[in-house]
Amino acid sequence: MSIEAFRAELGDIPQEDNPRIVQQRSRDHYWYSPVLKAKLDHVTAEVVVSPRTIDEVKTVLRAAFRHDVAITPRGAGTGNYGQAMPLAGGAMLNLMNMDKVLSIEPDRVRAQAGAVLEKIDHETRQAVRGELRFHPSTYRMASLGGFIAGGSGGVGSVRWGGLRNLGSILGLKIITCEAEPRELDLTGEDILKVAHAYGTNGIIVEAEMPLAPAHDWVDMIVGFDDFIEACRFAEGVALQDGLLVKEVSPCAAPIPGYFNRHQPYLKQDQSVVLLMVAPVAVPALELFISHHAGDLRFRSDNATEDELRRLPPVYELAWNHTTLRALKVDPTVTYLQTRYPTVEHVRRIVDLLGDELPMHIEITRQDGKVTFAGLPLVRYTTEERLEEIIRIHEDNGCDVFNPHRYTLEEGGMKRTDQRQLAFKREADPKGVLNPGKMVAWENPDFDFSAGKAWLFDGLNPVHAA
Amino acid sequence: MSIEAFRAELGDIPQEDNPRIVQQRSRDHYWYSPVLKAKLDHVTAEVVVSPRTIDEVKTVLRAAFRHDVAITPRGAGTGNYGQAMPLAGGAMLNLMNMDKVLSIEPDRVRAQAGAVLEKIDHETRQAVRGELRFHPSTYRMASLGGFIAGGSGGVGSVRWGGLRNLGSILGLKIITCEAEPRELDLTGEDILKVAHAYGTNGIIVEAEMPLAPAHDWVDMIVGFDDFIEACRFAEGVALQDGLLVKEVSPCAAPIPGYFNRHQPYLKQDQSVVLLMVAPVAVPALELFISHHAGDLRFRSDNATEDELRRLPPVYELAWNHTTLRALKVDPTVTYLQTRYPTVEHVRRIVDLLGDELPMHIEITRQDGKVTFAGLPLVRYTTEERLEEIIRIHEDNGCDVFNPHRYTLEEGGMKRTDQRQLAFKREADPKGVLNPGKMVAWENPDFDFSAGKAWLFDGLNPVHAA
Repeated sequence: MSIEAFRAELGDIPQEDNPRIVQQRSRDHYWYSPVLKAKLDHVTAEVVVSPRTIDEVKTVLRAAFRHDVAITPRGAGTGNYGQAMPLAGGAMLNLMNMDKVLSIEPDRVRAQAGAVLEKIDHETRQAVRGELRFHPSTYRMASLGGFIAGGSGGVGSVRWGGLRNLGSILGLKIITCEAEPRELDLTGEDILKVAHAYGTNGIIVEAEMPLAPAHDWVDMIVGFDDFIEACRFAEGVALQDGLLVKEVSPCAAPIPGYFNRHQPYLKQDQSVVLLMVAPVAVPALELFISHHAGDLRFRSDNATEDELRRLPPVYELAWNHTTLRALKVDPTVTYLQTRYPTVEHVRRIVDLLGDELPMHIEITRQDGKVTFAGLPLVRYTTEERLEEIIRIHEDNGCDVFNPHRYTLEEGGMKRTDQRQLAFKREADPKGVLNPGKMVAWENPDFDFSAGKAWLFDGLNPVHAA
Repeated sequence: MSIEAFRAELGDIPQEDNPRIVQQRSRDHYWYSPVLKAKLDHVTAEVVVSPRTIDEVKTVLRAAFRHDVAITPRGAGTGNYGQAMPLAGGAMLNLMNMDKVLSIEPDRVRAQAGAVLEKIDHETRQAVRGELRFHPSTYRMASLGGFIAGGSGGVGSVRWGGLRNLGSILGLKIITCEAEPRELDLTGEDILKVAHAYGTNGIIVEAEMPLAPAHDWVDMIVGFDDFIEACRFAEGVALQDGLLVKEVSPCAAPIPGYFNRHQPYLKQDQSVVLLMVAPVAVPALELFISHHAGDLRFRSDNATEDELRRLPPVYELAWNHTTLRALKVDPTVTYLQTRYPTVEHVRRIVDLLGDELPMHIEITRQDGKVTFAGLPLVRYTTEERLEEIIRIHEDNGCDVFNPHRYTLEEGGMKRTDQRQLAFKREADPKGVLNPGKMVAWENPDFDFSAGKAWLFDGLNPVHAA
């Protein structure tokens, strides 16, 4: 590996090697996890490269292949699992300069990987009153390519499921990392080879996505004295086929206490349900709230200009922003990713773990069924206790997708995606793309059932370098 | 009751009293049912009155109240249960002259009761690329008011549930039948007082409905050798949150044989699934079809202009049009309305009843869950055997909504809607609106559990008249 020889081949493609800036760009939100923080805090690349065109991306990948330089692609770096962190050093491939919306039709949009989600929606709303089906809570920063490579769903998942569902992504253009990088257009099933693969097997440079109808979503916060009642209401809303909602999230007390700027609207000790509602559905939802004896604490359609300027949108209280807001108040908390099949499962875990696990649910559709996706906070003590909390979940029939792991397999997937692995052999034969993230590539014999976290060998040498 | 005095008060409101035409306008598709056919064949009004404005509707109702003339409101008369048949004679209130689309916004449309559904969609598509969430298979004839007063859902219910769901209707304007008729604007829960009340407790003159995004829906017909496989595929499609479909209907062999003009595309003895798919979802659906080893027999996006001119749209093979097409070939068949909780329930009924009950399913969402709504054909022999088939369903855990009844209670609802009854006392104190359809009004002590059909006393005298 010769980083100098690599850099020398990049012509006028912008490069940044100021160590402070490079380290900053080498990080994502891995620090949500005390486990990842301990493991990855020292990680940094040696240079950030920022191509502006597909040809420039090819130039970078051609040079990386020739000189064995590790390439970690990055959008806005808003992931939480170290997805976009350069475990083996080398170069960060910053794609945020490729941010154009390429085409808009009434039912779809095509954009470059570095286009920010909110910006895409702004353009599609203007052009065809459409918007992306879903977005993470980092909507205002996250890029389309980063979302597809490292995310799974978010706001909108209550209606549309997730990115992995058939039909959620229409097409991807990727660049392979070979002697002569190829440009591949993936459609249909092939999309799953690279979606949520952390950029380990091809660099996503364009994506085509279906559009949903845009609405001037109304933010609502509804209070409940009892968290389980809040969950029942939230599930009920999601089951009402006629109600048009984009976000439904029950947050148990004391979590609402972390929503600093919304404090004037909230009531001490209440749990809340966060909602985004289409204006056309607001009267029906008001009715539904009253049926459930909910306490409507806030609605953005009645707020003043001044209030709206001061308050973050409700989606910035939800998903991983819930954890972020808690961390700002109490840096010792962390979180888990879980799934509760029924409200009774939620109740059981809440009863067992109490305030050690302040409960946060995102109501989503999974395979057509309304389910309770959990993003509970955890009052962190030790890694052992965290593992115990995971075990308590599993013993009670609740799935856990461990967010304290930086590999594809150990996080959400829990097993090697053979399609992704096979495609890596084709698209990245030397394994220079985002090294250390796909266990099956690095260590085909690793035993996931042994209960130990996998450690990337490359990690220490880089640190020492 | 003095029909002459009533008519004399109508000024220049169009009236029609040619007995042949009046009888024709006194009928709906009740003849789908041999039971209703025997009971209602003789039913006719004495005059058809066709107001053009709300004021003219008020004039008609004022006169009807004063002279005790029965008023049966009617749209296009495309119902199947005798909903719009004037059991007590009197006047048909034809609302098809009130057919204006009043306002269109990106998320909603307001139209008069007599506006034809297809015409509304044509205008909203042009204006804002929106369309109604659902429509019956009689889309090209049925009116908005008739659909709301006598229908429940249809094409689109796989996504949006039914008209009764919270949020499916935004507002209704009705006229009461009193000494001085009032104009009432119903919203929220009040809508349920008059939706699906067959016009028994107020005349719907305007409705405001939410819009869904319009797509150039692609018709597809997918063949399966095994009907249960067809059902599994159909359920799977509906559970795929990312696929955008408007219609999913498995029809068991030999039903496809009734689809005359589609014969060149179909294969002998195959069952089929009828689909309407958004263009944006077509590639993903093709993939899903291949996963299920389905045989894609027809897709309208590959058809020639000439084929498209010749063929009815797929929705005119589905819902009650399935029965209609069977009846055209074999006038002895009739149908049932059922609900199967799971595919195993479908299989059990198919096994038990075989070709006596050619199975036709409409996949719908009910309270957020994908379910099998049945509209099976019945090879009719006697009313007793029909009752037996209903019992076989109920004994096997499958609901039946008897379409061979002309009253609100005995059909879908199976019990009195107390809201509708209470509202009738207010809006139609003399009970002149669509007499004979609400058992609770006519005969509060009727025992539904006794297992006998209710007979409207007024029916015979009218016949004798």
